[in-house]
Amino acid sequence: MSTETEAKRKSVKQNKQLESRGRLLVKCPDKPGIVSVLSTFLYSHNSNIMESSQYSSNPENGTFFIRIEYHCDGLLAKSEQMEKDFEEIAANHSMEYEFAYPNERKRSAIFVSKEPHCLMELLWEWQNGDLDTNIVIVISNHEDARPFVEALGIPFHYIPANKDIRKQVEAEQIRLMAEYEVDLLILARYMQILTPDFVNHFESRIINIHHSFLPAFIGVGPYERAFERGVKLIGATSHYVTNNLDEGPIIEQDVERVDHRDDVIELKKIGRQIERRVLVRAVKWHLENRIIVECNKTILFH
Amino acid sequence: MSTETEAKRKSVKQNKQLESRGRLLVKCPDKPGIVSVLSTFLYSHNSNIMESSQYSSNPENGTFFIRIEYHCDGLLAKSEQMEKDFEEIAANHSMEYEFAYPNERKRSAIFVSKEPHCLMELLWEWQNGDLDTNIVIVISNHEDARPFVEALGIPFHYIPANKDIRKQVEAEQIRLMAEYEVDLLILARYMQILTPDFVNHFESRIINIHHSFLPAFIGVGPYERAFERGVKLIGATSHYVTNNLDEGPIIEQDVERVDHRDDVIELKKIGRQIERRVLVRAVKWHLENRIIVECNKTILFH
Amino acid sequence: MSTETEAKRKSVKQNKQLESRGRLLVKCPDKPGIVSVLSTFLYSHNSNIMESSQYSSNPENGTFFIRIEYHCDGLLAKSEQMEKDFEEIAANHSMEYEFAYPNERKRSAIFVSKEPHCLMELLWEWQNGDLDTNIVIVISNHEDARPFVEALGIPFHYIPANKDIRKQVEAEQIRLMAEYEVDLLILARYMQILTPDFVNHFESRIINIHHSFLPAFIGVGPYERAFERGVKLIGATSHYVTNNLDEGPIIEQDVERVDHRDDVIELKKIGRQIERRVLVRAVKWHLENRIIVECNKTILFH
Amino acid sequence: MSTETEAKRKSVKQNKQLESRGRLLVKCPDKPGIVSVLSTFLYSHNSNIMESSQYSSNPENGTFFIRIEYHCDGLLAKSEQMEKDFEEIAANHSMEYEFAYPNERKRSAIFVSKEPHCLMELLWEWQNGDLDTNIVIVISNHEDARPFVEALGIPFHYIPANKDIRKQVEAEQIRLMAEYEVDLLILARYMQILTPDFVNHFESRIINIHHSFLPAFIGVGPYERAFERGVKLIGATSHYVTNNLDEGPIIEQDVERVDHRDDVIELKKIGRQIERRVLVRAVKWHLENRIIVECNKTILFH
Repeated sequence: MSTETEAKRKSVKQNKQLESRGRLLVKCPDKPGIVSVLSTFLYSHNSNIMESSQYSSNPENGTFFIRIEYHCDGLLAKSEQMEKDFEEIAANHSMEYEFAYPNERKRSAIFVSKEPHCLMELLWEWQNGDLDTNIVIVISNHEDARPFVEALGIPFHYIPANKDIRKQVEAEQIRLMAEYEVDLLILARYMQILTPDFVNHFESRIINIHHSFLPAFIGVGPYERAFERGVKLIGATSHYVTNNLDEGPIIEQDVERVDHRDDVIELKKIGRQIERRVLVRAVKWHLENRIIVECNKTILFH
Repeated sequence: MSTETEAKRKSVKQNKQLESRGRLLVKCPDKPGIVSVLSTFLYSHNSNIMESSQYSSNPENGTFFIRIEYHCDGLLAKSEQMEKDFEEIAANHSMEYEFAYPNERKRSAIFVSKEPHCLMELLWEWQNGDLDTNIVIVISNHEDARPFVEALGIPFHYIPANKDIRKQVEAEQIRLMAEYEVDLLILARYMQILTPDFVNHFESRIINIHHSFLPAFIGVGPYERAFERGVKLIGATSHYVTNNLDEGPIIEQDVERVDHRDDVIELKKIGRQIERRVLVRAVKWHLENRIIVECNKTILFH
Repeated sequence: MSTETEAKRKSVKQNKQLESRGRLLVKCPDKPGIVSVLSTFLYSHNSNIMESSQYSSNPENGTFFIRIEYHCDGLLAKSEQMEKDFEEIAANHSMEYEFAYPNERKRSAIFVSKEPHCLMELLWEWQNGDLDTNIVIVISNHEDARPFVEALGIPFHYIPANKDIRKQVEAEQIRLMAEYEVDLLILARYMQILTPDFVNHFESRIINIHHSFLPAFIGVGPYERAFERGVKLIGATSHYVTNNLDEGPIIEQDVERVDHRDDVIELKKIGRQIERRVLVRAVKWHLENRIIVECNKTILFH
Repeated sequence: MSTETEAKRKSVKQNKQLESRGRLLVKCPDKPGIVSVLSTFLYSHNSNIMESSQYSSNPENGTFFIRIEYHCDGLLAKSEQMEKDFEEIAANHSMEYEFAYPNERKRSAIFVSKEPHCLMELLWEWQNGDLDTNIVIVISNHEDARPFVEALGIPFHYIPANKDIRKQVEAEQIRLMAEYEVDLLILARYMQILTPDFVNHFESRIINIHHSFLPAFIGVGPYERAFERGVKLIGATSHYVTNNLDEGPIIEQDVERVDHRDDVIELKKIGRQIERRVLVRAVKWHLENRIIVECNKTILFH
């Protein structure tokens, strides 16, 4: 269970089950007949719709969003033609769209600073076969996590970080993201500010965990400020990173009850449990293409 | 807010919004193309799919379930023709189906014994315009609730009940259900056993609230037994009534935390809060045609 | 259940059980021996400690808080002497303290505007015998609630309110608070700003329900802003009113899950359920003398 | 973080803070004056009560339980005399009691079968300094967990187990428990039945995690049966092991929401999250002497 080999073996088994599964995400102006067009297209390509979720931003002149998961025998061989055939439909209905194939696992990078709990939870779920991604690299501005990351066969890169060397640090990080062909960047309690330039490189592809119930306690020291304010619940928020600090589209939030006896240390301890599960949920949903970002909000298709 | 007139006024306004809304529920053998057939049918009848949820019991040779909510201008005038046109499709694909129109409000009866909290919550939600039904009659084996039921303009029928007179009591109840054309029968803490004969009259149309987290504490005295066992959470369960006591399809469950200091009286107090919300949720989902019963379970389309 | 008489009858029964119950709340500089002094005092007055909760703000040089609930046969006749005997102890240890007797029910006023759900929940709990207070007056800047308040035998005062007449409105309200000897003032969705002068009259005796998870969405339109921000949970907060808007000591908070489909109307609907239970809990704890306010936070002795 | 050395270093730091902390648990017939006797005793031994929780099973002729946490400079040197001095008080009031010193860490054994998630969570909390115990041995009937247990410097013993060799297996286990001087035995998804003889060796010292919301789904296959029944919440229960299967005193329970789409595999996945946190909470409370077992229930002093 604790070796790379086993995780790989599990993923191979999963891939086999997933080879005939496709996902189609579409966004377009809402009007009658869209579902008919899409489902008829899939049927004509011998695909059976297994799961379908849709949302209209507005009953009139709104935007239509849909996520379809379909089964198609021999999908791998057919997908190229299917995508080609879809182009005309998309053009006719002004669709933005994405075909995704679960067997083509997304490649994830994890950024972490000193606190390892979120990293550990991600690795644990991944080892367990419950996180459908290849974790291709872990980057940290501390050496602490190296032993157990490398023990799992994952490359660990130590890159010191502070305000003064931010530019060169980010240049190196961007280089590594390219080298490892990273699709998703997970900030698992990475305590450094990212520059707009860096963020723009990875639009809607950086997931952060903020240790408060946003928009309460934006910025630094949320547990300290929660303690000061005397709140009765503390929370955590996972969100896509944008260039407005802690203002990106929220993916998931959760809370736990606290009371007057809980000092800041205790709040952090309770908070770690919340952060772990809130980040993992967000990452899973992203990997399953369940999230659409629209106007600084997320549409979540469970 | 506390008068029948206002509740009626609210419902009129809602009905107006709902006049162009239809719901279609379908159950059939699963195979590719069903969604295409249904969505193309709706599109050809100028209907726009607003909400759609589906479920397959099994990837292979399973049963397919779908609930579609659609918008169609002038639906009232067209629905008869639509339903007629649908017959051939249904026959071709061995569909069981139901067309429902939110403006045709279901007619509900509430049965209650001494404890009024579930009845009160239902009436409150109904007054508030949040329960899309006509409450046409309240039946009780106690007189307690009469004043505030009649104050809302709802007929209240007192029918004494005990084991010895069960047959004639149920005969009278069935007569009233017919007279008031009742679609849904809500047992809001009605503490009498119903005979199989009665239950068969209203298959999948009687919703009960059981004051435990089923299948724990089936039968009488669940709070007493929860206290005896020393559980740390208590719950409530809403379910359709079948002829196996407390074994019917579960619709909704919820729990609250308790501790060793809570005696039976306190458990009941906490439990009332759970019962209220669990019953109301179940009733709402039933009224919105969000529940399909299959093999003693419920499929819930949120 | 729905009449004043029954509510009174219940309260009489409760009073009888409560006649021998006393509560003692103490705040003093922390040092060894305080519990010994207090428990020995109570024992010497034939009182049995039934419940005791304490808290030290700091292990060293901190402040000590304790709430003791004790049983004493014939307490009513003895309490005066007990309180007199306690004076020397209190002086020796620099104690601030309060003796409270559950049978001396606090007198509550409820302020409400148009939305009745919090008022209704309070009245419901009160009718049910679960709110240990006398509701002596309801004040509103709308007439809506009059019928069902007066039906319960509670005086209802309509006082129109707006910015221009605030001074005279508050003068009238203060007069009524004095006339009805009000101990606790509950703002059950009263949508008017109170002046510092008014608030100072009732320090730590005004409980408000704010319809957000504070400190998120301070001020107006919290549900609108929660919708704008795309949060995944909404909440409500009950707190004592101070002269910093929505910044008073928090008593209780709770949340519910929402999603992208929930528009502002739906958020308000879900929010009403949270507001109802969060306000009722806060009021109950206040009535049971379970809350101590310290440095803009609450210590809650459950 | 991942090495034994660091965990030890953390525990040393903690021990230092804890050296002056004592805990006293008392059970005796309820009568006025008990708190006075205990607090005066502690005060006379220069101890300051930091935390105190009590419970009476019954207002009249009940049993009184109290847990006191106190601070005493130089406690280690004084504790023997204190305990000696306490004997007379205990005798006078028919007290059962226990003095506990947090710096004397309890010694824990973990039993595990194939599923490692509960073991992992315990080890994680322990590494993090959040589990105040020495994990002295892990015993399993499978080899899977050996690498990561031994990597933490904890002895791992593989003992194959099945019905036929139960006697000799348990003999070996009892021998190891004695050799390692084990205080607490944690069944972290150990899927073997223990004989009455074994259980009697460790009364109120074996904590099990059962993968259902007891008393629902006692025995084998709870997730399979939860799926069959169509429940809308699944749970887990930690409890002390007695000789009635799954009937021991419940320590903690928690639940998560599930729906009709969750098959047994998904239920197990969700359930693992619940099991992890429910077991860890129970173990923590036990280690902090917060649990008193009385009449097959637990009194929990938080």
